[in-house]
Amino acid sequence: MTTSKAAVLVAYNEPLDLRDYPIPAEVGSGEALVRVEMAGICGTDVHLWKGELPVPLPVILGHESVGHIVQLGEGLERDWRGETLAMGDRVTWASSIVCGTCFYCRVKRQPTRCVSRKAYGISYNADQAPHLRGGYAQHILLRAGSSIFKLPETLPTVSVVGAGCALATAIHGLERCPVEWGDVVVVQGTGPVGLAALAVARQSGAGKVIVIGGPPHRLETARRFGADVAIDFAAGDQTARQRQVVEASGGYGADLVIECVGIPAAVNEGIEMVRDGGKFLVLGQYANAGNIEFNPHTITRKQLEIRGSWGFEPRHVAAALRMLELRNWAELFAGQVTHRFPLEQANTALETVRQWQSGKAVLTP
Amino acid sequence: MTTSKAAVLVAYNEPLDLRDYPIPAEVGSGEALVRVEMAGICGTDVHLWKGELPVPLPVILGHESVGHIVQLGEGLERDWRGETLAMGDRVTWASSIVCGTCFYCRVKRQPTRCVSRKAYGISYNADQAPHLRGGYAQHILLRAGSSIFKLPETLPTVSVVGAGCALATAIHGLERCPVEWGDVVVVQGTGPVGLAALAVARQSGAGKVIVIGGPPHRLETARRFGADVAIDFAAGDQTARQRQVVEASGGYGADLVIECVGIPAAVNEGIEMVRDGGKFLVLGQYANAGNIEFNPHTITRKQLEIRGSWGFEPRHVAAALRMLELRNWAELFAGQVTHRFPLEQANTALETVRQWQSGKAVLTP
Amino acid sequence: MTTSKAAVLVAYNEPLDLRDYPIPAEVGSGEALVRVEMAGICGTDVHLWKGELPVPLPVILGHESVGHIVQLGEGLERDWRGETLAMGDRVTWASSIVCGTCFYCRVKRQPTRCVSRKAYGISYNADQAPHLRGGYAQHILLRAGSSIFKLPETLPTVSVVGAGCALATAIHGLERCPVEWGDVVVVQGTGPVGLAALAVARQSGAGKVIVIGGPPHRLETARRFGADVAIDFAAGDQTARQRQVVEASGGYGADLVIECVGIPAAVNEGIEMVRDGGKFLVLGQYANAGNIEFNPHTITRKQLEIRGSWGFEPRHVAAALRMLELRNWAELFAGQVTHRFPLEQANTALETVRQWQSGKAVLTP
Amino acid sequence: MTTSKAAVLVAYNEPLDLRDYPIPAEVGSGEALVRVEMAGICGTDVHLWKGELPVPLPVILGHESVGHIVQLGEGLERDWRGETLAMGDRVTWASSIVCGTCFYCRVKRQPTRCVSRKAYGISYNADQAPHLRGGYAQHILLRAGSSIFKLPETLPTVSVVGAGCALATAIHGLERCPVEWGDVVVVQGTGPVGLAALAVARQSGAGKVIVIGGPPHRLETARRFGADVAIDFAAGDQTARQRQVVEASGGYGADLVIECVGIPAAVNEGIEMVRDGGKFLVLGQYANAGNIEFNPHTITRKQLEIRGSWGFEPRHVAAALRMLELRNWAELFAGQVTHRFPLEQANTALETVRQWQSGKAVLTP
Repeated sequence: MTTSKAAVLVAYNEPLDLRDYPIPAEVGSGEALVRVEMAGICGTDVHLWKGELPVPLPVILGHESVGHIVQLGEGLERDWRGETLAMGDRVTWASSIVCGTCFYCRVKRQPTRCVSRKAYGISYNADQAPHLRGGYAQHILLRAGSSIFKLPETLPTVSVVGAGCALATAIHGLERCPVEWGDVVVVQGTGPVGLAALAVARQSGAGKVIVIGGPPHRLETARRFGADVAIDFAAGDQTARQRQVVEASGGYGADLVIECVGIPAAVNEGIEMVRDGGKFLVLGQYANAGNIEFNPHTITRKQLEIRGSWGFEPRHVAAALRMLELRNWAELFAGQVTHRFPLEQANTALETVRQWQSGKAVLTP
Repeated sequence: MTTSKAAVLVAYNEPLDLRDYPIPAEVGSGEALVRVEMAGICGTDVHLWKGELPVPLPVILGHESVGHIVQLGEGLERDWRGETLAMGDRVTWASSIVCGTCFYCRVKRQPTRCVSRKAYGISYNADQAPHLRGGYAQHILLRAGSSIFKLPETLPTVSVVGAGCALATAIHGLERCPVEWGDVVVVQGTGPVGLAALAVARQSGAGKVIVIGGPPHRLETARRFGADVAIDFAAGDQTARQRQVVEASGGYGADLVIECVGIPAAVNEGIEMVRDGGKFLVLGQYANAGNIEFNPHTITRKQLEIRGSWGFEPRHVAAALRMLELRNWAELFAGQVTHRFPLEQANTALETVRQWQSGKAVLTP
Repeated sequence: MTTSKAAVLVAYNEPLDLRDYPIPAEVGSGEALVRVEMAGICGTDVHLWKGELPVPLPVILGHESVGHIVQLGEGLERDWRGETLAMGDRVTWASSIVCGTCFYCRVKRQPTRCVSRKAYGISYNADQAPHLRGGYAQHILLRAGSSIFKLPETLPTVSVVGAGCALATAIHGLERCPVEWGDVVVVQGTGPVGLAALAVARQSGAGKVIVIGGPPHRLETARRFGADVAIDFAAGDQTARQRQVVEASGGYGADLVIECVGIPAAVNEGIEMVRDGGKFLVLGQYANAGNIEFNPHTITRKQLEIRGSWGFEPRHVAAALRMLELRNWAELFAGQVTHRFPLEQANTALETVRQWQSGKAVLTP
Repeated sequence: MTTSKAAVLVAYNEPLDLRDYPIPAEVGSGEALVRVEMAGICGTDVHLWKGELPVPLPVILGHESVGHIVQLGEGLERDWRGETLAMGDRVTWASSIVCGTCFYCRVKRQPTRCVSRKAYGISYNADQAPHLRGGYAQHILLRAGSSIFKLPETLPTVSVVGAGCALATAIHGLERCPVEWGDVVVVQGTGPVGLAALAVARQSGAGKVIVIGGPPHRLETARRFGADVAIDFAAGDQTARQRQVVEASGGYGADLVIECVGIPAAVNEGIEMVRDGGKFLVLGQYANAGNIEFNPHTITRKQLEIRGSWGFEPRHVAAALRMLELRNWAELFAGQVTHRFPLEQANTALETVRQWQSGKAVLTP
């Protein structure tokens, strides 16, 4: 095979186009050519498809993938954790590459805000060689400097893609806004980020986790992930939900509320649910979905801490992979993957996610 | 003298009323009767006068005062710091008393959110005995359990009242949202809280402090307090101010922005001035002054930390008094006091503050 | 019954004496008279019996107990958490009372170092009225200001005493030196403090917990408590143990080592097991057991953090009780209680603990 | 000139040898050839000369230097802070280079413990090409990946070398063990590290700084650096010093003690000076100078935090350079340089430092 098929976002709100790109005969120094085994459809892909974040069209989507190494460039001998890399190894990789030298990378040690950060499946124009920079494809060519992780045999591909970028995102978020031992935690949202935040909160010593979301089958999943209380968003209005949270948290509201919904209005509802002196972590507002009416006096009066978190670093991928080896998380996240599609049905896969029909949908190119 | 004169807020937006209240012949266990020497007019008093915070009228205003002990109740032998108390001692005191046993006091250790917190000059109805619970009066009767601080001889009364509750407020705020060594800090506002925040930031190791405020005489004061850059709020629009801050901070915005303005719109302007990954401390939104249009995506994209802080604890008063003994802070804060009025002119004093004519106005009852 | 039997430490290394003390006909304001149901024999009691900590003999031992309220003093209406107290309620209580006003209580907020701290079962001379200040007795009279906790019906007495003061001690220790998410943790020692530290580390998000101790039945208990690796102290020398820890931690040593042994030499062994840049928590050196040869260069070269923790505060008892309601901790700690004795056999009970024969021994007075 | 003179440590405790090394005609990609203007004699150089740290002899000493760029390798266009680099620029550089990929660099983010760290003036054998890897020389060849800092015109060379590696070391140490606002701080030692720690503590918001050291001229320097109290080590015994510290700190000892002496016994003396619940930072035990008798019970009983710190990262050099632009630090550190020697008198310079005759001695090659 000298070409690789890829599903390409050519125009916003239009079907993805299946295109062929040449596979490089030889990879450059430090690069790796990977045969994609499975690629997750992330909610962000739907935002990209709708044009809600600016990207350099055409773009091969796909930023949470697993595959096998088919070519290794000169000098690429070890993965991010220092393990030996060889042809055939099953690997995943951090979606972004940062410069390592800018003000944010170097002085402020916040590389997620690197001024030159580029993400596979998002930031690369597929018209430009070497084209293969997204996971919705048979092959992806990883740049020198990519953070590659060799997967242990005991960790199934479907667990890694089932956890997806959501788990690393939640780990980074909860690193910035940690659960304190015994905290009552509310998670708003039961999509992939919400479930991942629930898992990380559970794993981090939360005393009680209350989840708000839906539909019912996702609340059932939330209970399997360890939610103590699962509130159906559709079963009452904000007042009812607020009352349930206050009751379940002993009368004062939660120590920590994690917003994983993505709708701006969720921010005001979430802040109401925080006890005085508590914390609010905004994880869901990754895309710009508009303004809310907001009363800043609330921040003072309730003596709040509000924190945002953008993406993640390679070390959070490492932490996610470690976590998947604990308890039964690998099994739980694998169970998230409810729909599998071949590459040719990438549009159907995207549509399935857009309509919230799936737990998690994946491509198997 | 068996009665004490007091300036009483009887109706919102109406002149204070000068009334006489009986002085108790004997004080109860743990109580202290204090002859007020000087009482500061705080910006909050103007808010109270306008009816912007609910209070149990009639109220003797005044929550930042210094006086001399004229009666000591049984068992009150030491001040908050453990120093011996005696008749005639010059003292100040924390404005609030908390219950010490509620969820916030005990479990969460955030007594500023105590469910039973009561403040001198704010929370006490003057019709009810023992009446004398505010600083705009010749006498104040401190309850058992008050946090009293004996003042060292070297610390002038005018320094303590000049620092007022603003300094303890700023210390608490910057404890919750600390300056990191070398930080570029922006202070929005040059009122008493803004100047106090500037002083605390300077004292805490800030690398550079940029102040935005006015009018020019207050910017001059800010420079004396240690501002490296003082931007006149009136000299340009938000874009111009934003550009000045970015330039003065090396191109990325400030590590920490402290909002000390009190107008809701200042929150959006301040957040713009924070660098990615930086911090925003809301100190000025003590009263509810309404909503803003706010985009929560900003919190995520800029990876922000936003913190609120409500009032202060006795230990922050202790810290404020310690700080006044360092460098030339006592002199600088004393210099803040530009207007002195007898108790009979309490209305004029309040009016002076309301019209922003003063640095700080005080009563000398 | 107008007298209460108590087991009294009259002279170091001598058998406890069974004595009768008068039960007060009426309890004072804020006090509570409690009929003791179960009292734990703590390792510290053995140290006291040996005279390794100075105490005002004679002393009724016993600082980790559960009982039922038989008299409530005036004004004592709620427990530490704000729940209503009534005759017959089953309760436990924090072992210590602090002054709340000294430098450590007030300014430094470290009440475990209160200059006037007094502990039931340790600090009270039994010759002095009201005598009944220890748990090895039919009754204990709790002072006004004691931190009392009403126990939920679902939480067995044997779980609370099985957790004993060790759990609150471990919670305080790990608050001062927190497990970071995913940390490799070594616990030195499998006595009550070691098992409690293991439980708290597990509950707090440790990625892997390695326990070193013995004898084998205690290692088995450690595995039930969640140890990933249990190393028999007696199965090899320090070099062998060090090698096992380094292997189990991926080649560099542990992120956090918690010393719960009590023998000074354990400190040097534990520090060796910390990776460079890691943390070492000293929990076991509660009594002064002498010096070690120590090389301070190690602290610099390995860039260590070493932390000590003394006792606990009432809020850590609250946290311990909350933790006992999570997972199967109540059952696991109850399973720790292997020996029960009537008050008359207090000496045998103490001897059982001294000879390390028990998991945990208790009195049922 | 085609050769460069250098002062070389050939054998421990023997005079340095003045040797000539070839200057490379062309520098490699990313490298920089620097004409050394001034090189500090660090106390560590004396330790190296005595053979107290293992080094690959022969070694050109010198790890705190300033010079001008005379050749720039391909691709080296910007300094660590992103500023343009050009021929003739006056620069300094971080003494160490780390791998960026090992467990400590990557996973634990503690690059000072990098397994492959190499330091100019310490880790390079001068027999091996390109030889010029130390500052006691006319030229030094900086490797690709070095952290170079272009110096602003307003910052004198003598200030940068006067601050030396001590200032970056102190900044790193106090980042790991921060001064809390208002802390009473004790600095043990008035050598370069002690004075730097004093400066950083002062700059970081310490409420009071007590210095212990000598001889008297160094105590005088300490007062100029901002010490509130300067205790002459030679004026009394440990008991007397302890009493002075307790008195000066209000009766309980210091919140933070910083050990900058380097003699093991200073650790026990310093720990005694910490208040209960306080912190102890070990900065001075960089070399292995043997064991002390140590009682680990002290860590528990006093509820201490003890922290070590090894070297520093490039960002601490950046912070040091920023600090030198604040207040009058540049002038104060420049004043530290009391002795200047040409390269030919490197032995005399080293001897001057060894005999504690100087503030700071420098070479001007």
